[in-house]
Amino acid sequence: MSSTREILEAAKLAKREICCLEDGKINEALLAMAGALTDRMGEILAANARDVEAAKGIISEVMIDRLTLTEKRIEAMATGIREIAALPSPLGHTLRELTRPNGLNIKRVSVPFGVIAVIYESRPNVTSDAAALALKSGNVCVLRGGKEAYRSAYAIVSALRAGLNSVGITEDAVQLISDTTRESANELMRATGYVDLLIPRGGKGLIRACVENATVPCLETGTGICHIYVDKAADIDLALAIIENAKTSRPSVCNAAEVCLVHRDIAGEFLPKLYKRLVTDREENPVELRCDARVREIIGGVPLGENDFDTEFLDYILAVGVVNSLQDAVTHVLEHSTMHSEAIITRDVRAAEYFTKNTDSAAVYVNASTRFTDGGEFGLGCEMGISTQKMHARGPVGIEELTTYKYIISGNGQIR
Amino acid sequence: MSSTREILEAAKLAKREICCLEDGKINEALLAMAGALTDRMGEILAANARDVEAAKGIISEVMIDRLTLTEKRIEAMATGIREIAALPSPLGHTLRELTRPNGLNIKRVSVPFGVIAVIYESRPNVTSDAAALALKSGNVCVLRGGKEAYRSAYAIVSALRAGLNSVGITEDAVQLISDTTRESANELMRATGYVDLLIPRGGKGLIRACVENATVPCLETGTGICHIYVDKAADIDLALAIIENAKTSRPSVCNAAEVCLVHRDIAGEFLPKLYKRLVTDREENPVELRCDARVREIIGGVPLGENDFDTEFLDYILAVGVVNSLQDAVTHVLEHSTMHSEAIITRDVRAAEYFTKNTDSAAVYVNASTRFTDGGEFGLGCEMGISTQKMHARGPVGIEELTTYKYIISGNGQIR
Repeated sequence: MSSTREILEAAKLAKREICCLEDGKINEALLAMAGALTDRMGEILAANARDVEAAKGIISEVMIDRLTLTEKRIEAMATGIREIAALPSPLGHTLRELTRPNGLNIKRVSVPFGVIAVIYESRPNVTSDAAALALKSGNVCVLRGGKEAYRSAYAIVSALRAGLNSVGITEDAVQLISDTTRESANELMRATGYVDLLIPRGGKGLIRACVENATVPCLETGTGICHIYVDKAADIDLALAIIENAKTSRPSVCNAAEVCLVHRDIAGEFLPKLYKRLVTDREENPVELRCDARVREIIGGVPLGENDFDTEFLDYILAVGVVNSLQDAVTHVLEHSTMHSEAIITRDVRAAEYFTKNTDSAAVYVNASTRFTDGGEFGLGCEMGISTQKMHARGPVGIEELTTYKYIISGNGQIR
Repeated sequence: MSSTREILEAAKLAKREICCLEDGKINEALLAMAGALTDRMGEILAANARDVEAAKGIISEVMIDRLTLTEKRIEAMATGIREIAALPSPLGHTLRELTRPNGLNIKRVSVPFGVIAVIYESRPNVTSDAAALALKSGNVCVLRGGKEAYRSAYAIVSALRAGLNSVGITEDAVQLISDTTRESANELMRATGYVDLLIPRGGKGLIRACVENATVPCLETGTGICHIYVDKAADIDLALAIIENAKTSRPSVCNAAEVCLVHRDIAGEFLPKLYKRLVTDREENPVELRCDARVREIIGGVPLGENDFDTEFLDYILAVGVVNSLQDAVTHVLEHSTMHSEAIITRDVRAAEYFTKNTDSAAVYVNASTRFTDGGEFGLGCEMGISTQKMHARGPVGIEELTTYKYIISGNGQIR
């Protein structure tokens, strides 16, 4: 087994080959990788079974479910790779071109980053998604998964590498780090000159550790404290449907809503309906409403805890507050949001404009659910995560966001 | 005087006003700021004279020269601001728009970062450039200059703030940190939630400190070990003119050439001419050539020191080496470059293509001087520095690169 340093050295060498592949060749490799995944289904399932067996009693049921592979899930991983192959290449586009008065021609051209390192946790499909997204955008990837999923990741990466090998591309384009201790994560965070982009995918702790400690460029993803503001000019039925969807359709994901703010002028009418819709009408998984003092005056409910406006519940829990105005709603969002996704429900075009202009998040919705912040839903294809930083990329990180650009300047002897 | 924390709090408040200004209002403010600079010329010159007096004997003559202001230099600063005002706004552009099958309209719109912190050294003009670039792109700026230039920076910022005030915009859009110790720099680097983008401008030590220690998003700028590769198919006269220009027109800047690589097939003819052009023909400032063993076989010269291929000389010194092939030249550049600017001199279109495709720097030139890597020369206007990282922006960082984007999604009740 190679050390992390050896893997990084191999990645640095491999990027010289991978950066210059034609899109046709990349797609040939991706299809071979997808094929190898299904060809080796038996081995992958066996490795995964050992991971699942070892993890029982150690990680939660939800995490066990995320870890578990089935034939169907492996097929879906292969399909995901084929879909990525079908996307147009993000490389080699002239993003801008000008010819200066002195005759210099200046082109801004999209190019790969080089080596992308991904630190993630227990979902095995991240392994194939990340490898495929990186390759489609001309990058080498170095994967460092969680301990619980190591055998699965190893089997998946072996299949992907066999696919690369079968079309004559260096296997080092996709590498898995065997050290799953904190040590290797720290080494990746500080691998200046080796890692051109680091992407943490996982919980808050992992992401904070990367952002705090990385000296290589790091793309912050993930945490979503998403707000839905019900304006005084809201269509109430539409608001109820959107909030129920944003909160309950999949509470464990980052684009689920965690906070609902209601304009005081509409609170008396709206809040009892919200209570009915999210609590009394729901036989399965009623939502726990954590309510500020003014909400409690109207519908009672569990008192809002001290940190409830700053908590990503990822559960059937919603913090609810009353605000005096649109401006106060925006102020609340600016103070508590993680810059992921927010929504306003209103029929007032000016209120919608004020909200979208003055909030500061990656995705701002008018009259729609925050659950749409997703590469597929945005029409970008599969993604590497949702960026919550402002540098480089915001929102869904697809293949285009895994590229950078260079300037190519052509002259005939220009000097300055 | 306000503490760094108070300044950051004020900046966070001010960004709510500044992010939403119309371009016309921003330009009115910029013109008022330019006017205030010339109106207060006497005060600024007096403050600068005290800085210069105090710095004598402490910093080098070159640094004293950078620090010194004259009426002409202040006029140039004001002109710089007026030129920035005349640029088209980088804000509010719809960068992409699509309507999904479910009717959701998704727009990617350019928006300000918010608060930009700039840590810089002794050049007073950085103060006005940074403030104007930040404001034009809808950002608040927090400036932290060097100790030697504090009085000058204070006088300049006072003038700029008077300009803002005169048109009814909050003065807190431009703030100067009074603490010039390492303490305040460290505070800016870790001001999560306050600083949306940190830009260090200055020497290698400052930039490394920011990249290593910043937990806020940081844009790495600056260091340039720029290479010029003279291919076997080079036009020799053109190569000589370009190398002389790239090395000697302004050796102290980051886009000056530091290394010349020569293809072995042309070395016997080229190197004696290079020696004549850069050494014997130059009465003023002859260049010291530091030569590898194969160069020395042909023209003698000072032996290359161990680190000379990795040194930004910023002086009349050029490291010179012979390479066996175009491929070896690229390998050398990949190993030693700082990803700033490189050039190939060749008449061979394929060699040029190979070089531009396989090197990995922000700007890659064919038959032109590396000295053109500059916002003005690229037609972007004045810039905040030259990015040598791959994330977010590469090369000149102008007003467009000081923006980010958000997604604005409009629906009529879509749920997922």
